[in-house]
This record gives sequence, C-alpha cells and structure tokens, in this order.
Amino acid sequence: MRIVMKNNVSESEWNNTLLFVQKLDARIISEKSKKTVTILPKANGEDLPEAEIAGLPGVERIIKTETPYQLVSREYKNEDTIITLGDINIGGDEPVIIAGPCAVENESQIIETARLVASHGIRLMRGGAFKPRTSPYSFSGLGEEGLRLLAKARAETGVLIVTEVLDAMDVPLVSEYADVLQVGSRNMQNYKLLREVGNSDKPVLLKRGMSANLTEFLMGAEYIMAEGNKQIILCERGIRTFVEYSRNTLDLNVVPAVKQVSHLPIIVDPSHGTGRRDLIEPMSMAALAAGADGLIIEVHPQPLESWSDPDQALYPEQFARLMRKINLYIEWQKEHADFAPAH
Amino acid sequence: MRIVMKNNVSESEWNNTLLFVQKLDARIISEKSKKTVTILPKANGEDLPEAEIAGLPGVERIIKTETPYQLVSREYKNEDTIITLGDINIGGDEPVIIAGPCAVENESQIIETARLVASHGIRLMRGGAFKPRTSPYSFSGLGEEGLRLLAKARAETGVLIVTEVLDAMDVPLVSEYADVLQVGSRNMQNYKLLREVGNSDKPVLLKRGMSANLTEFLMGAEYIMAEGNKQIILCERGIRTFVEYSRNTLDLNVVPAVKQVSHLPIIVDPSHGTGRRDLIEPMSMAALAAGADGLIIEVHPQPLESWSDPDQALYPEQFARLMRKINLYIEWQKEHADFAPAH
Amino acid sequence: MRIVMKNNVSESEWNNTLLFVQKLDARIISEKSKKTVTILPKANGEDLPEAEIAGLPGVERIIKTETPYQLVSREYKNEDTIITLGDINIGGDEPVIIAGPCAVENESQIIETARLVASHGIRLMRGGAFKPRTSPYSFSGLGEEGLRLLAKARAETGVLIVTEVLDAMDVPLVSEYADVLQVGSRNMQNYKLLREVGNSDKPVLLKRGMSANLTEFLMGAEYIMAEGNKQIILCERGIRTFVEYSRNTLDLNVVPAVKQVSHLPIIVDPSHGTGRRDLIEPMSMAALAAGADGLIIEVHPQPLESWSDPDQALYPEQFARLMRKINLYIEWQKEHADFAPAH
Amino acid sequence: MRIVMKNNVSESEWNNTLLFVQKLDARIISEKSKKTVTILPKANGEDLPEAEIAGLPGVERIIKTETPYQLVSREYKNEDTIITLGDINIGGDEPVIIAGPCAVENESQIIETARLVASHGIRLMRGGAFKPRTSPYSFSGLGEEGLRLLAKARAETGVLIVTEVLDAMDVPLVSEYADVLQVGSRNMQNYKLLREVGNSDKPVLLKRGMSANLTEFLMGAEYIMAEGNKQIILCERGIRTFVEYSRNTLDLNVVPAVKQVSHLPIIVDPSHGTGRRDLIEPMSMAALAAGADGLIIEVHPQPLESWSDPDQALYPEQFARLMRKINLYIEWQKEHADFAPAH
Repeated sequence: MRIVMKNNVSESEWNNTLLFVQKLDARIISEKSKKTVTILPKANGEDLPEAEIAGLPGVERIIKTETPYQLVSREYKNEDTIITLGDINIGGDEPVIIAGPCAVENESQIIETARLVASHGIRLMRGGAFKPRTSPYSFSGLGEEGLRLLAKARAETGVLIVTEVLDAMDVPLVSEYADVLQVGSRNMQNYKLLREVGNSDKPVLLKRGMSANLTEFLMGAEYIMAEGNKQIILCERGIRTFVEYSRNTLDLNVVPAVKQVSHLPIIVDPSHGTGRRDLIEPMSMAALAAGADGLIIEVHPQPLESWSDPDQALYPEQFARLMRKINLYIEWQKEHADFAPAH
Repeated sequence: MRIVMKNNVSESEWNNTLLFVQKLDARIISEKSKKTVTILPKANGEDLPEAEIAGLPGVERIIKTETPYQLVSREYKNEDTIITLGDINIGGDEPVIIAGPCAVENESQIIETARLVASHGIRLMRGGAFKPRTSPYSFSGLGEEGLRLLAKARAETGVLIVTEVLDAMDVPLVSEYADVLQVGSRNMQNYKLLREVGNSDKPVLLKRGMSANLTEFLMGAEYIMAEGNKQIILCERGIRTFVEYSRNTLDLNVVPAVKQVSHLPIIVDPSHGTGRRDLIEPMSMAALAAGADGLIIEVHPQPLESWSDPDQALYPEQFARLMRKINLYIEWQKEHADFAPAH
Repeated sequence: MRIVMKNNVSESEWNNTLLFVQKLDARIISEKSKKTVTILPKANGEDLPEAEIAGLPGVERIIKTETPYQLVSREYKNEDTIITLGDINIGGDEPVIIAGPCAVENESQIIETARLVASHGIRLMRGGAFKPRTSPYSFSGLGEEGLRLLAKARAETGVLIVTEVLDAMDVPLVSEYADVLQVGSRNMQNYKLLREVGNSDKPVLLKRGMSANLTEFLMGAEYIMAEGNKQIILCERGIRTFVEYSRNTLDLNVVPAVKQVSHLPIIVDPSHGTGRRDLIEPMSMAALAAGADGLIIEVHPQPLESWSDPDQALYPEQFARLMRKINLYIEWQKEHADFAPAH
Repeated sequence: MRIVMKNNVSESEWNNTLLFVQKLDARIISEKSKKTVTILPKANGEDLPEAEIAGLPGVERIIKTETPYQLVSREYKNEDTIITLGDINIGGDEPVIIAGPCAVENESQIIETARLVASHGIRLMRGGAFKPRTSPYSFSGLGEEGLRLLAKARAETGVLIVTEVLDAMDVPLVSEYADVLQVGSRNMQNYKLLREVGNSDKPVLLKRGMSANLTEFLMGAEYIMAEGNKQIILCERGIRTFVEYSRNTLDLNVVPAVKQVSHLPIIVDPSHGTGRRDLIEPMSMAALAAGADGLIIEVHPQPLESWSDPDQALYPEQFARLMRKINLYIEWQKEHADFAPAH
C-alpha cells in the first residue's frame, strides 16, 4: 500500500503519518521528496487498516497494489525505470547490447573479445568467472583470477563488466570487480543471494528461472528491491518446454507481458535461450521488435574452442553482421518513435 | 531417396530407371522436366537398393534425406517454396498479412470486416464458418451459410478467403468457396483430413498442434505433400507450456528452425498464439523480425461483441496502427535485403 | 441445469414443464423414470430463466452445474457410471485389464495373442486395425482385414474387442466388428468423430490428448454424452512434458482428479504412457493404487518383431508376472474395501 | 572410470597404481578395502589413458560409466544404497514414512505434531525452520528458534528431524540440530550448497527441481557424493507442466527410472507434488506401488490454521487412515517379496 501525501503536507502531518504506520509491524519505505510512504505486506498476511490511514490528516490518497509483487509493479510506479551506468541507459529509448564470451578463459581470450565488442561500439561485456555447471566435473570458471582478467579488459578497452555471482558469500568479492551483478536462472529463487544483491549498490541483472512464471520472476526482483536496490534489469533466457529443436524455448511473449505490469527494463538472451548459433540473429531481431530493452549475446573469438557452450557463441563475423543489422534497426526505430509501445 | 538423372539422360535410360524403381513396392514420384525420380520410404521400413540404383545407366547421383520428413525437407528441395494466389506470393520476398474475424457471424459483420481489411491493402481474409469448439454447447459456426457469406464478401471487396475445414468429408464443400483451406491445430494429426486436402488443388494453411514438436509438425505437411499438393503454408499458433500470462506460448523459435530444414513458408498467428489483444502488436513485429513469411491476425469491427475469443481480436484502430507499422517495417526490410536470412 | 421434479409430480405438471423448457432454444434431455429434465447450455451463452423454472408447479429443485462440462460431471450425476459388457463391469468394484498388441499384424499373431491374454483370464483385447501414424510412410494398419481378424480372434477365444476408429466416416464399419470403440489421443478434439461415436450404441474408450487439461478431456467426453451415448471410459495415456526418460509423462494425478469431478470410469495406459517396457509393471501397479478402474496394456508374442512401438510391448513372461501381481493386488484391495476412495 | 584391482593385489601394485593415477590431474577416490580406485572425469573433458591403466600390474578390469553422472550410477555401484539412521533404514526392504508440518510455528504445534506422528509409529518428522518463500513478505520460518523447537520435539518423542537448509552458510547451524539435511527444489542446482552438504556427515534429502530432467537431478546428487557424502535420499516432489488441476505434476515415472540407473533411494512427496489434500492418499499409495522407498507427507494438527500451504496438509484423522492403509500395504508387499522389482 502506498500513501500519497498532499502536496502541501505539513511537517507534523508527515511525522504523524510515519508514527502511525511504524506501529503496524510491517516494513515501511518513506520517500519524503516524493511525499509517499509505502507499507509492505505483513508476513502474517494481516490486512492493513486502510480506512484509518486514508483518514489521517495530510493523506491525499492510497494506492493499493493488487498483485503479489509491490515495488516492482507498475501500479506502484508508473514511469519506466532506467538504469544508469555512466552515460549508458538501460530501459531508456534505445536498446543496449551486452556481449562477450560464456566464460573468461585466459587473458588473451578476454582482452581479444573486449576489443572485438568495443570495436562495435558495445559498452558492456559479459563473461563468467564463476560458472554454474550441471556437472561437478566441468570447468567452473577461473574464480577471482577471472574477475581480475575482466577488470583488466575493462581497463584496456573501457567496456563495463557484467558477471555472475553464484552465492551470497561471494557478493562482496564480485562487487569489487563487476559493474553489473548477474544472478543466473538457477539462482532466481536463491533468496539469500537475492537479498544480498539487494543490499549492493550495483545494478543487478536477474535471469528468469527455467520454469518461472511471471509472478515468480517478478517476485525474484521484488526480493532485491525490498532490500533497497532499485537497479534491476530482468532477463528472459528461455524456458523449459517439450520442444526439441532449441535447447530452451526463448519466450518473447514475456517481454510485452512484463512491460504491462512492471516498470523494470527487460532484456533478452538469445544465446542461452536457443542454444543454437543459427537462431541467434533472427531471435535477436525478434526480441528487439517485441520491445526488449536490450540483448545479451555470446560471442567468442574461436567458438569451437570455447570451454563451455561452444554451440551457441557467435563467430566474430556473424556478430559483426548482427551488430550492423541491429544498428540499422535501432535507427529505424528512432525514426518511428511514435510507434513505440505506450505503457 | 531422390534420383537425379544426367542432364543428357536418354529416353530409354529414363524408362529403364522408372521400370526398375516401380518394382520396389514403394511410392514413386517422377518429374521428367526436372529429371528426377523420388522413391518414398517403404511402409515396412525396408532399405532401398541404393547401390544398385546409383549404378543404373543415366543416373547422375542420389540425394538421401536423413530426416523422417522427405518431400518437405530442404535436402529434398533447396529453393524456398512460394505459394501463388493470383498475384499474391506467400513465401516470397515480402510477408503477407491475412486478417479477419475469428468466425463469420452475419452478413454485415463479415462484409464490414472485409472492407476494413481491404482498406489496408490486405488481400486475404480469414473467417471461420466451421469452428472447432471445446464445448459442444458453444457456437460452432454458420456452416455452409458462413461459406456463402465469405464468398459474398470476396465478391464485394476482392479479398481472397482463408477458412477452416474440420473434417475430410467437408473438403469438397469448403473447397467450393475457399481460396485457402485451413487445417487447425486440433487437426494437425487428423490424417484422413490431411490426405484429403493433399488431394485438393487449393493451398493449405496447416496450423501447428499445441504440443507438436518440429518433426511432427513437418510430418503433418508431409502427409499433405505425399498426396501431391505442394502448396502448403505452415503456421505457428502457440504451444502449450506452464506459462500463465498468455493463453498459449507463441514460439517464434520455430520460424528460423523450420527455415533451416524445410523449403515451406511459415506464417505466425499472434492472436491465438497469445490470446491477449495487448500482445498482438509486439508479437506481430517480432514474428516478422524472426523471418516469418506472414501473419494471420484477428480483427473485428466490435471485438467485445465477437461470438468467440472476444479477448484477442484487435479493434479497427489498433489494427490500423499495426498495419502502418508493419508496412513501414516491410519497406525497411526491402531496403536492407542484404540482411535477409540466407538458407 | 437439471430440474428435479417432485416425487408425486402429476402428468400435467410434467408436460407443462416440458412445454416450458422446449421454448428455450436449448437442448433438452428428459428422463421421466428419474423425474428429471436437463437443459443444456445455450450456444449463445445466454442465461436460463432459473427463477421462473424453479417456480413451475411440480418442480422440486434445480441442480446447477458450475463446471463447463455438464452431463459428465458429478454434480449432474453423483453415482459412479458402470459400463457393462456382458458380465464385465468397467467402473465397478474391480479393475478391468485390457491387453493386446499395438496393431493387428496377421492371423496367427492376433489369435496367438488372444489365446495368451485369455489364458490369464482377460476378457477384453486391444489391437489396432486402423493406426494413426506420425509418418505417411509407416504401416497404418490392415484396415477392414484387421477388423475381420479381430472378430475371428473373438470367435475363437471369447475375448471382446477394443479397437480404434480414426474418422467419423469409419464408425459404422468399425462398429460392425468392435465391442468398444477407441478414440485416440490425436482425436480427442476431433468433434465430428466424437459426435459420431456419441450416436453409436457401443461403449467408447476416450484417450486423453497429449496436452489436454482436465476440462478439455472431460469436454471431449461431454461431446459424446451430449449425443446420447453414456458409456464412456476415460483413459490417461501420458502427457507431453519436458521429461526425457519416458516417451510421455504418465500423469496418474488425473485419476483421483477425475474421480472428484466426474462419474465416469478412468483407466490407464502405461504402455503408451511411458513408452518403456521396464516401466510398465511399476506404473501399472501405481495406476491401480491411485484408483484407476483398469489398465490397457500392450503385450506381443514377439515384441521385437512388432510392426509398431516394439519398445513398449511386454514379453509374454513379463505379462504373466504382471498379471499374477495384479490379481494378488486386486484380492488385497477387496479384503480392504473399507479403504476404497469415497466420492 | 573405476579400476578394480585383483583380489590378490600386492601392496606395491596398489601403491604403483595410486602413484600412476595421481599424476592424472583428476579427482581420485581410492577404497582399499574394496580394492577399487575411482578416477573422476577431468574438468577439461580430456580422456583418461584407459589402455595404459588397464595394463598396470595388479589391475583386474576397468568399469567405465557411460552416463555423465558417475558415483551415483548403478554402473558404478550395483547394490542399492541404504541410508541408516539408528535402526531406521532408508532404501531397504520397507518404505519409510516421514511426516510433519510444512513449517515449525510454535512449541505446542510442533510438539503436538511430533506426538501425533510418533503415535503412528513414525520415526522421522519433517518441519521447516528456514522456509524458502516466493514472496519476500511471507513468513520465512522461525530460524534457529525453529531448530531448537525441533530438537525439543525430538527429545520429547524420539522422532528424528528432517529439516531444510537454504544456504551453504547455514549448513553448520542446521547440522547441529537436524538428523537429515533437506535441500529443496529451488536449490537443486545451488552448487555451493550441494558441495557444503556433501562435506557434512548427515544424510541429505535432495528434492528434484521443478523442471529438472533425470540427468540434472542425478547430477545434483553427484555434486554431493563427489564431496564424500554417500548418504543421499532423492525425492520427487512434482514437476511443472501445463496441468491445471494439481499445483505441480507428481511424476511417479521417475521412481522406476531412477532405480534403473542409480543405486540411491528415492522417496516421494505427494503433498508438494499435488498441492491438494484430496490427492494425497491415492498418490501416496501409487508412489509406494511404483517402488518408492518412502514418502514425505505434510500433516498438521489444524491444517486451516497452518502458516503456509494450508491446502495440502492432512488432517490428523486423514493421516491416521492413510497410515493404516500404508501399513496394510507394506505388510502385503512383504508377503509377496518375490514380486519386488529386481535391479
């Protein structure tokens, strides 16, 4: 429940309202500059004393959020959230492309890739130092050494770093090096990790779980936002269905569905979403046309020598073609801004 | 197995080859103008005498198709199939839009809709006279009367008619009126119906079953083509998954996946695919960007008064906006034809 | 809506009620012996004049069915439906086992199988003469010749015949030979076929579609029952999920779920449901424990020489062991009839 | 790869073999008493020098495991694993029932439940102190206080405690109180947690992820076993499908499928698996009939007052009836031990 105070609310009205709600045994977020006080749902499911609150002096109106997610909902906040990293805006008018290898393998590989993506005007590079692997015997990333190499690639090329954090314990370490903390599909309901990145000051890229419905996906984001971190980028990366021709089923329907109910930006990962190099170009274009705020794409200098997921990374020349196509499309989109989806 | 004869094959070599293969107890398709003879798989699964055939005089080479589908595969025929209806091409350079109501309700509704779609330059109208309904108590279409009204709408506006045929017995009747025969999702494995439309001279629009994988989808088309009808338009219309925010999960991945392995055109139905009016514009654009050869969209003069699926038909003004956007996009695509997907 | 007339309803009250409801433009089923009149939902979705009907002289009360399915619902009819074939009861206290090969292949195979199953006390044999096949090039059954062989096997051994009918046109032919008409998964929403078997006097075995939810499954049965045929046996045969270790996912949850809302018997097909010979014994036992009214199992004298689905038919010795186990279990169940599920 | 040494292997042959394999840069498990040395797959995917190893003096034969999972596979270890807790055996001849509330709520609730389950001869109680909740605003368990209450219930009644651990950091704390550590569905691929419980000396109950296929499920167990902990109980708890009548689709097929390829015991959770109180009895019986090594069932003194999942806990009288039925069934099973599944 969000309490909107009158524009001319007095100091004592504001304070009285706060005093009143603080007695409710619920979490409170007050934003004086916006003249709003938010009361989060109570753990025991009890109703809040709505009528009484509405009657407090200085209260203009009450906004009730009907969905289980509160802070991430469009009912709560109508304007699109834009995540700002230096002069990069995610969720603004122009889609943002994140690209890079599945995993950091060694210095020359990651520096070469950073140069490659930077040469296409890309400002954000992905690359895993901690890799969640189905098998305990598979390469699981270079760990901190990988983070150091990512930082080196940033220093040399200026690209900012998006990298995964696998466990709540690792958040401080990864935060030292990363510009954006990625929470992977397998961890979309790792609540300790969500709370921990919710207390970080870094933007968080939250990937949808393989069988997460929309409410569960947004509830993952709600966990982060309830801790105070408002910089969340959602990411569709394929769901699990019966389909056999793609490793996962990239579900673009979620893009406009999210836009209807949430103010958060959402990007799309066609690489993990399809697991097929030849589907990445068409599904990237489709994602942008569906209204995605960006893409996260795997590219590798020598895909077949990639230590993980060799079938889904683009070759540099494929990536170059895709980037030219994307740039042309973005230009076209700007020319026809009147056709942008209205929320 | 496809036998490609030498360019200078003699009459007697051609005849001898035919004589040889006709003894094989398998279905044979010979195309003298293309100098090819196709031997379809034997019902008992027996191998064909490949070496012997390759050694026949006049035989240049043998093309073996590794997939269970034969005639619809790109191995069998490399060039894209284009369906021609008057001067309309489906599967050519430019996507084709089919639009109209879910069902024919009465004369004024269908004529009004035909005028509406024609006013946007649309040449093909959809509209059901025979409607498959989950409930035996629901409106199941006007039947032959509906077909007559469709024909009347065509006569008045020039739009060609795409309409569903539900049963093998109805193929002759529906063929009298329709320009394209639609086989719906529930009938994708109704083999008697598939065989019957396979013997028709009308193009067939084959909708993917709700839980059909790629092989099953193409095998549906193979049934039709094995009977001789080569004019098949595939149609993705949403699959059944756990997802709750769309009635079905429109699976755009199937578009480039089909293009890799089949020469048939594929269009997309965002109306049934999502079941949500507000998702149709973004998913239409996404389908085109994914490489679809067209769209089939529901539009109704008064959607809320529609007798079936009132939540998914576009309002005329929404449809007008979408058509403007689509036309701009098609123009942009033509300007950048060098970026069209290569097969 | 079901109108229950008073026990002492007079002739004129009965007739007046009928006159009243026949003006409603809805389908009516009157059962004078039960003193009930059923009004089926109107195609245009209009409400029925409930209050007016309740006020008619002689009307005791009105039973409204909240689900979209009417006649098949437990609200409509509380007592379990029992299908009677001679002295065989399906849906009664004791589960019924149906067994036989996937397809009729030749006389010796089907007679040998009939003797095999009869030797285990089995009274109903399955066997396909018309086979729906994913590929147009696969063996699709012996057709009428297969039906004749089934009849011969019945004549020689006394087993009754369950066999599939694929198309509305074939219902008269198949009915000449079959004791139970099977409608397969692919046809669960072939409404013309459902209506046609609904007009037959043979019991119908209706298999669940691969992606049918409970409502759709029961609506398939409703189509049959709305035509007048009350002898319907539902059959769970596996749904399509992401799971890779069984060809389909046999969903036993549907058994008690059906029992809650419908009076129809439901049996289970572990052969198609799993597609794995080694899962058939455990899943057969599980199906009975879940409350299934019977099983339909594939058995073949020489499974590896079976013309279709060779991986799922039981060997005669496996089948013998399973039947001993089933018989012991049924005996145990009878001893503990107080633990039978109450509906 | 498992090296089986000759029965009369000499000390120096044993040592030489160890020396040889230790140079391979792979994980090694040597079990001198069993005369076996296991070499786990290398992270870089490199092949092991099989021929060379087979030629070492004292080596009898080499067992290669074809599946990605190694230690948990039946190829690796043929005999069923039995987990022993005092005189309770999980995975032995008799199924084991675990019962208790979803969450520990307060002292009287948990003591009352412990007495209730103990009165039915149950030796293991479930109950969550740390609860993973989709919403950050829901009750998430009493934490350490909950663990203390569980310990108190054990002290008063003798029931052993199965309780969930949500995060690697919490393993030491939960291990102080729990007899069996539960890893929940959402954490089936939380590899840090799996490794941590792999280093614990407590048995681990590993629940299948909602969209985990068989390989992924067993790979979760492999993570635990690769760390040294061999006491793993697998648990099926429902998968996510399109089905609407149960919260999840309890997939009993996985029980015999696991038994074919793994030596680990597997139990079934019909409470979370269906989310419907009325399905628990039939699906419990079905699970046992499918060969499950046990059940984990929710029961609550006053289900409707339960703080979480009130729709799925059994009432005490329902539970009493179910336990009587289960006990009768177990007795019957013992009488017919010759029908137990053979692996």
